[in-house]
Amino acid sequence: MVKRIEGGVTAAKGFQAAGIYAGIKRKRKDMALVFTEAPAKGVGTFTTNVVKASPVKWDMKLTAESETIQAVILNSGVANACTGVEGEVNNRRMAEAVAKELSIPLMSVYTASTGVIGKQLPMDAILTGVPKLVEELDHSLNAGTLAAEAIMTTDTYSKECAVRFMIDGVEVTVGGMAKGSGMIHPNMATMLGVVTTDLAISKELLQEALSENVKHTFNMISVDQDTSTNDSLLLLANGMAGNKEIREKNEEYKIFCQALNIVTTDLAKKMAADGEGASKLLEVQVLGANTEEEAKCLSKSIITSNLVKTAVFGNDANWGRILCAMGYSGVSFDPDQVDLYIESNVGKLQLVKNGMATNYSEELATKILSASEVKAIADIKCGKASATAWGCDLTYDYVKINAEYRS
Amino acid sequence: MVKRIEGGVTAAKGFQAAGIYAGIKRKRKDMALVFTEAPAKGVGTFTTNVVKASPVKWDMKLTAESETIQAVILNSGVANACTGVEGEVNNRRMAEAVAKELSIPLMSVYTASTGVIGKQLPMDAILTGVPKLVEELDHSLNAGTLAAEAIMTTDTYSKECAVRFMIDGVEVTVGGMAKGSGMIHPNMATMLGVVTTDLAISKELLQEALSENVKHTFNMISVDQDTSTNDSLLLLANGMAGNKEIREKNEEYKIFCQALNIVTTDLAKKMAADGEGASKLLEVQVLGANTEEEAKCLSKSIITSNLVKTAVFGNDANWGRILCAMGYSGVSFDPDQVDLYIESNVGKLQLVKNGMATNYSEELATKILSASEVKAIADIKCGKASATAWGCDLTYDYVKINAEYRS
Repeated sequence: MVKRIEGGVTAAKGFQAAGIYAGIKRKRKDMALVFTEAPAKGVGTFTTNVVKASPVKWDMKLTAESETIQAVILNSGVANACTGVEGEVNNRRMAEAVAKELSIPLMSVYTASTGVIGKQLPMDAILTGVPKLVEELDHSLNAGTLAAEAIMTTDTYSKECAVRFMIDGVEVTVGGMAKGSGMIHPNMATMLGVVTTDLAISKELLQEALSENVKHTFNMISVDQDTSTNDSLLLLANGMAGNKEIREKNEEYKIFCQALNIVTTDLAKKMAADGEGASKLLEVQVLGANTEEEAKCLSKSIITSNLVKTAVFGNDANWGRILCAMGYSGVSFDPDQVDLYIESNVGKLQLVKNGMATNYSEELATKILSASEVKAIADIKCGKASATAWGCDLTYDYVKINAEYRS
Repeated sequence: MVKRIEGGVTAAKGFQAAGIYAGIKRKRKDMALVFTEAPAKGVGTFTTNVVKASPVKWDMKLTAESETIQAVILNSGVANACTGVEGEVNNRRMAEAVAKELSIPLMSVYTASTGVIGKQLPMDAILTGVPKLVEELDHSLNAGTLAAEAIMTTDTYSKECAVRFMIDGVEVTVGGMAKGSGMIHPNMATMLGVVTTDLAISKELLQEALSENVKHTFNMISVDQDTSTNDSLLLLANGMAGNKEIREKNEEYKIFCQALNIVTTDLAKKMAADGEGASKLLEVQVLGANTEEEAKCLSKSIITSNLVKTAVFGNDANWGRILCAMGYSGVSFDPDQVDLYIESNVGKLQLVKNGMATNYSEELATKILSASEVKAIADIKCGKASATAWGCDLTYDYVKINAEYRS
């Protein structure tokens, strides 16, 4: 019903994008623009960090007050966080430049920044960059990719995903881009992400779909337990697909939520797999919990344990660390009931039965853990709720990248 | 009033100790025994992890049921956690062997284990080790050091501390040993620690003194946010100093609490500084909080941030990461009011004033952070409460040690 297609933010009808080098970073692309020809409903989820970057505060205001959104201006290199009044003025000037060049209202321009905290935006570069971006705007899938590349910081590859489905006899597309890497422990939000769709839908339902969605996708990944000051996930729906506007939680709404889930889960997993220094993706599934909340809490406790992450890096089936991380999660369970498995493309292996080691082969365990995508499954046999979390291993490169980030 | 002296668990009157190689680990000492000639009041604080090792369960039972304690048997190499009924039987057999050799009641023998989770104790080595330990028991300070060495795992040095003070015209001594290194994020307890004193005091007050103490000492350190399955801090008071037994919170009780605080703070800081792979001790002080609880929460959030820890390793005054960690701590404060300083033996430097960077010298900041003991001070200017937490940097060696721990 929902099928994956090529592309990202320009996959849906009426969306254009651009990504350029404006001189904020030393060499790589550093500014991106997303534009929708028809004004779109715009919603977002944002960081829960008390310290919020200027663009986050701006976008929260627009989400509450603006009927429609027409553009998103993004930059990498400087986060515009902890920059005081000057930072807010600079953020507004960036949005004003876009509004002027595109002849659209100031209050229809979302902003997003990522990079070093505490530095002011280099306004010369920004203001020279905006007209260039507008000139480069394009419908092509390649333009979407250029935008996805321009928001990268320590990411090693750009992250895009798109899907297509039919409702009311019309084709609807959902596409998105995101950047992650470090300071990744989203809470009610993520690092920078922009998802676009040509679906017609009410703003209320659009926000509800997104808020519900992130609980199972971006909020279930962690690279280093650090919730950033700039986490923003923006979703624009411009209605150009031509479907009858969705105003209730009908069958069409459910299909859209499925489609959105495919896009955001894909972007979230790519973000986890490309965590700073990561050599592999770690997926943790907890089964048999009493409530979904408890299953989430257990799976996130495992995925964030430095000791689990280093063991996974070392291809070491040190399962005691998994049980230990479950034990301090705050969730109550009977350790003597726990079953534990590991799985990858090499095969599946039960390490623990009823809280104690099975007579498993360490050699096979190491082989399974040597794959580039590794899964751990813990069954606590209490109830029927389950949850999945995604993370990555902790490597020498994480330390290297973060000990030297600013130099 | 309270003065520091040489020694550890054998510093107080009537305490003997021994540490030997029994064959549990490949080469290094792996069993220790602490013995008090006069039966002592015994109290403890233990891990809050749902997964509790057999010795933890045993010691909790003894603390509740036994009038007096006379010995503590400890081993390193195997944690005896996640070992089921066999693990509990083995733990009891270890205690029985000590009780028999010393002709003391079984229920007066505390046990403690540290090492790999999920492996059974090698009982041949343990049962051969116990008589040897009893034979080696000695009053000397050196015997205390041998015991402190025998409980080490990935620790790079043994941890001891002792102090002496006068009450009722008699000399009272408090001395202790501890081991830490990895899986260090104590919660109402710590890794293995034994503190001895010849003070005469009621069991109730002894427990209260210890429980209050750990909130400010061992519970304020973190190496990797992993709360172990084996955390135990044991405190024995044998009354041999000859003071009138303390039965109320009088002046003498306060002096004892001060002395205990010096010993446990010293051991806790040594544990943080010797965290797995650590190259330096990081102390974080939060001032101006509304409540002590909030100050603790903020300081622990900073001390546990992987991004702060790697920046400290890289001698990089990346203060945005400190503000970020404060921001997601769950404590509400005004980011635009925060002042931030770093300090070491090189000097003190203000990095942030009212939430924004001062015009500080990056060169001087790097010099300050290059010291082996580094302090960060954050003033949030809300109220009058403060707290201090201790941790260490995150280095290549942490990853190395934990990716290869079992091999």
